[in-house]
Amino acid sequence: MLSPALAELIAALKVLPGVGQKTAQRMAFQLLERQRDGATKLARSLQHAVEVIGHCNECRTLTEDPVCRLCQDPKRQESGLVCIVETPADVLAIEQTSTYQGRYFVLMGHLSPLDGIGPADIGLDKLAERFKLGHINEVILATNPTVEGDATAHYIANMARQYQIRTSRIAHGVPVGGELEFVDQATLGHAFSGRKQFD
Amino acid sequence: MLSPALAELIAALKVLPGVGQKTAQRMAFQLLERQRDGATKLARSLQHAVEVIGHCNECRTLTEDPVCRLCQDPKRQESGLVCIVETPADVLAIEQTSTYQGRYFVLMGHLSPLDGIGPADIGLDKLAERFKLGHINEVILATNPTVEGDATAHYIANMARQYQIRTSRIAHGVPVGGELEFVDQATLGHAFSGRKQFD
Repeated sequence: MLSPALAELIAALKVLPGVGQKTAQRMAFQLLERQRDGATKLARSLQHAVEVIGHCNECRTLTEDPVCRLCQDPKRQESGLVCIVETPADVLAIEQTSTYQGRYFVLMGHLSPLDGIGPADIGLDKLAERFKLGHINEVILATNPTVEGDATAHYIANMARQYQIRTSRIAHGVPVGGELEFVDQATLGHAFSGRKQFD
Repeated sequence: MLSPALAELIAALKVLPGVGQKTAQRMAFQLLERQRDGATKLARSLQHAVEVIGHCNECRTLTEDPVCRLCQDPKRQESGLVCIVETPADVLAIEQTSTYQGRYFVLMGHLSPLDGIGPADIGLDKLAERFKLGHINEVILATNPTVEGDATAHYIANMARQYQIRTSRIAHGVPVGGELEFVDQATLGHAFSGRKQFD
């Protein structure tokens, strides 16, 4: 029913996360019917990004430079802080808060022995080298509060201990603006065990 | 924070329907991290589709051929049936039912005078030529059951009347498998006024 070029485009769109057959069809029709310029631009940006974007040699985030802009910033280098996150999206989210002025290390995943993802796969050998070099006062563990994220945080905390580097974990608790009654048990448990002196 | 190539890719992804900043970020990271082959293929398919896909000269659907496969089918040409739909997605949906063996005419929209979309914009001049040529026994109006879709159906029915061509509208009523109590008033009204002899 569909012409080959159209069928191929729909199949190719399904590579996008969360996009199934129906959404891919809708995207293809919309692009071809109303967004041809946008589609051309998207094709070029995709091709260009795949060609030039690699990982930062320092923090492993996605970038086309050998060392990303955040790692190049001398102020961040002098901060002595390294924040460990799972994905480049986490870096973005933290940067948008404007509360952190240190460097990052992006694991690009988390430890998951069952899936064959060990320490080297998430760059912990490279992280150990940075620990060895010194200049780090504190490692902030900002992996996701999931079983795998917590396990990864523990593993990295143990590594840091060998180099006498202080480690901290970001606070988990009731989200600001959230309502207590709708918060899950585990989060509420964290909120109680992590309570702070009120002043 | 983001490197230029990455920022450009995320901006370009937002051309896709229903994709905002966060989804575009997620798509970009996933493509670059895990789906580079898929991303390259998507870029090529997009570029190719934009270059070759146009409209069928007969039914206006999206295709890279001058006349689409459905319009080329002699069995469909002999059927004397033309089904009027708003989008190529509607053609797909109808084809998947395997209940219709005639030809289509794809409006690529609907009449919407407020948006400046008149009869010529949805190809009704071309449809009138086909009516004039004859060989059509019945026009099946399968535009969406919306105000605009209904208005468009009425307009086309009037056109067909000038050429003494029979017109029909697809049935509207309670969806199969649906529960009566959750069906909206308008649909239930249609279901009653369109009731059929039970045998």
